[in-house]
Amino acid sequence: MKYSIGIDIGGTNTVLGLVNSQGSILQTNKISTTAYNDFDAYMEAICLNILDLCKQKNIEEILGVGIGAPNGNYYRGVIDRAPNLKYKGVLEVKRVLEEKLRQHNASLEVRLDNDANAAAMGEKIYGKARGVKNFIMITLGTGLGSGVVVEDKLVYGHTGFAGEVGHTIIEENGRLCNCGRKGCVERYCSVSGFTLTAKEKLKGSSQPSILRNYNEEEITGALIYESALKGDELALSCYDYTAKMLAIALANATAITSPEKIFIFGGLSKSGNLLLDPLKEYFETYLFDVFKGSVSIELSGLKDDSAAILGAAALMF
Amino acid sequence: MKYSIGIDIGGTNTVLGLVNSQGSILQTNKISTTAYNDFDAYMEAICLNILDLCKQKNIEEILGVGIGAPNGNYYRGVIDRAPNLKYKGVLEVKRVLEEKLRQHNASLEVRLDNDANAAAMGEKIYGKARGVKNFIMITLGTGLGSGVVVEDKLVYGHTGFAGEVGHTIIEENGRLCNCGRKGCVERYCSVSGFTLTAKEKLKGSSQPSILRNYNEEEITGALIYESALKGDELALSCYDYTAKMLAIALANATAITSPEKIFIFGGLSKSGNLLLDPLKEYFETYLFDVFKGSVSIELSGLKDDSAAILGAAALMF
Repeated sequence: MKYSIGIDIGGTNTVLGLVNSQGSILQTNKISTTAYNDFDAYMEAICLNILDLCKQKNIEEILGVGIGAPNGNYYRGVIDRAPNLKYKGVLEVKRVLEEKLRQHNASLEVRLDNDANAAAMGEKIYGKARGVKNFIMITLGTGLGSGVVVEDKLVYGHTGFAGEVGHTIIEENGRLCNCGRKGCVERYCSVSGFTLTAKEKLKGSSQPSILRNYNEEEITGALIYESALKGDELALSCYDYTAKMLAIALANATAITSPEKIFIFGGLSKSGNLLLDPLKEYFETYLFDVFKGSVSIELSGLKDDSAAILGAAALMF
Repeated sequence: MKYSIGIDIGGTNTVLGLVNSQGSILQTNKISTTAYNDFDAYMEAICLNILDLCKQKNIEEILGVGIGAPNGNYYRGVIDRAPNLKYKGVLEVKRVLEEKLRQHNASLEVRLDNDANAAAMGEKIYGKARGVKNFIMITLGTGLGSGVVVEDKLVYGHTGFAGEVGHTIIEENGRLCNCGRKGCVERYCSVSGFTLTAKEKLKGSSQPSILRNYNEEEITGALIYESALKGDELALSCYDYTAKMLAIALANATAITSPEKIFIFGGLSKSGNLLLDPLKEYFETYLFDVFKGSVSIELSGLKDDSAAILGAAALMF
C-alpha cells in the first residue's frame, strides 16, 4: 500500500492527513493557520506535523505531500497573494517545506495546487470522476472555485492559474466582484452571491417571505435553504436565479472544453435538488446544440469533511 | 521532404493543395462544392483530385490528407450537419474518402477537423504559434470560429466539439443567434455581427455618418471599414463596441485555459489596428488580475489566401 500526506490550508485552520491510495484517512492533525509569528514558523509547524504523520509508516511508503491552498500555483509551488491568509505576498511553500523536510532527513516531494484543483483531483482519484477523462469540478463555497480536466489532466495553462470559471463575466456592469471587476459568476453563484441575491430581492420587492423576519446580517445560505424547504417563494426564487446564472457560466465553460460531467461541491451544493433541478433545466436551455445531452451535472461524490484532505493527497497519486 | 494534402471544404468551393512540411504550397486544385449530384459523387471528385496532386511525388512521401470543414468532427471523422453545405446530415468524410483512395491503390490516412481548429494547427506549424504551448485561434469571418490549444494539443473534449468561443453567451437575452439561443459572442464579433452593430446604431440614433448614404443591404464590413478610415465616428464606434464584446469573451476564455497568446484571423482582422487597439485595451480591463500581462493578442501570421489549405495540411504534420 502507498500513502500520501494531504494538507488543506485554510484561512483559519490547517488540516493534515495521512491517506492511503484507496482514500482512507488514517490520521489527521489540525493546527491553527494564524497562530504563528511568521510564514517560516508556520512552515516549521507544518513540517513537524508531517513528520508526526509519517511515523506511522515507513518513509519509503509515503509518496509525498500534496497541498491544497487558496491561490496555490502548481507550476511555481507558491501561494500567490491569497487575500484571506495571514501571511502576505508570494509564499514559497514548496521550496521552504521541501528544504525543512530534508533537514529532518525526510526527502519528500511537495506538490501545491489551489483548493478547487485539488478537489478535482480528489473527485478523479476517489470520487465520481474515476474513468472520466473530461470534467469540470465546481466548488460553491464563499467563492466559486473550479478545476478543469481535459483528457485526464488538469488545465493549468500558461500561468498555472487556468480554470477560473468563477471569474468569467456573465453580466457586463453586473455586481461588483472582490476582484475589482463587475459581473463575475462568483458574485452570483457562491454562498455569498446567493445571500446577496436574497438581500436584493428583499429590498427590491414587497413579496412576503419568512426572511423578512430577520435582519440583513442574519440572512445566511442556511436560512434561505430552510425557508425554501418550507416553500417560501422568495427563497425558492433565489435558487432559481442562482441556477440560471450558473447554467449560463457552465454552458459557456462547456463550449470551451466540452466536459462529459460537471461536479458540484461545497456549501451551496448541500441544497441538493433545490439547486440541482433548476440548474439542470436551465443548463440544457443555454447549452449550444452540439453539446446537448452530452454533459451531465452531478453532485460531487466526495464527503464534505474529508474532501479537502483527499483532494490534496490525490495530487501525489 | 515530407508532403501533405490540405483540403478546405467551403460552401461554394473546395480547394485542395499539395503542401510541404515547410509550408510551401506546390499546387492547388479547385472544384465546386455544389456541382455534384450527391455526397458520394462529391467524394469521388475529391478523391480524383487528391490522386492528381499525388502524381507530383512518390506516394510514400505523402503523409496523408488533412481536411478543414464547417462542423468537422475530429473524433468521428464526419461533417456533422453543416448548415451551409449542400450535402445534408452526418457526412462520413473520413471513412468514405479513405475507402475510395484504397480502391485507387492510395492508402492515405484522412484527418478531418473543423476549419477553426485547422487554422489553429496552421498557426502552430507555419505561423506565429510555433513554440507556443497554450494559445487560442480566433477566426472572425461570417461567424466566429475558434481553436483552443492547451499544452500543444487542440482541446476536443468529450464530444470533439470543444473550442466554441463563438457560442459562449455574453449577453443574456441579447441578439438572437443562428443557433437558436440569445447573446452568443458570434452575433457581435464576426463580420455579420459587426454589420448588425452598424445597422442598429444607424437605426437607434441620428448621429451623422457616411453610412447613411447607403441602403441597409449595402452596409458591409468593407464599407464600415472604409468609413472608419475616413474618420466616421459611427463607423469607429462599431469597432469600439465589437472590440469590447470580443474582449469580454476572450477574457472569459482566458479564465478557463490561460493562453499565452490569442491570434485573430479572418475578415474582420483585416481591419488591423482599428479593431486591435481597442480590443487590447478592453481586454486588459476585463482580464482577471492573475492573468494581466500574461496574454498577448496578435494578428495571425497566416496569409488569407493560403491559411485554410495550410491549416488543413497541418493536421497531418
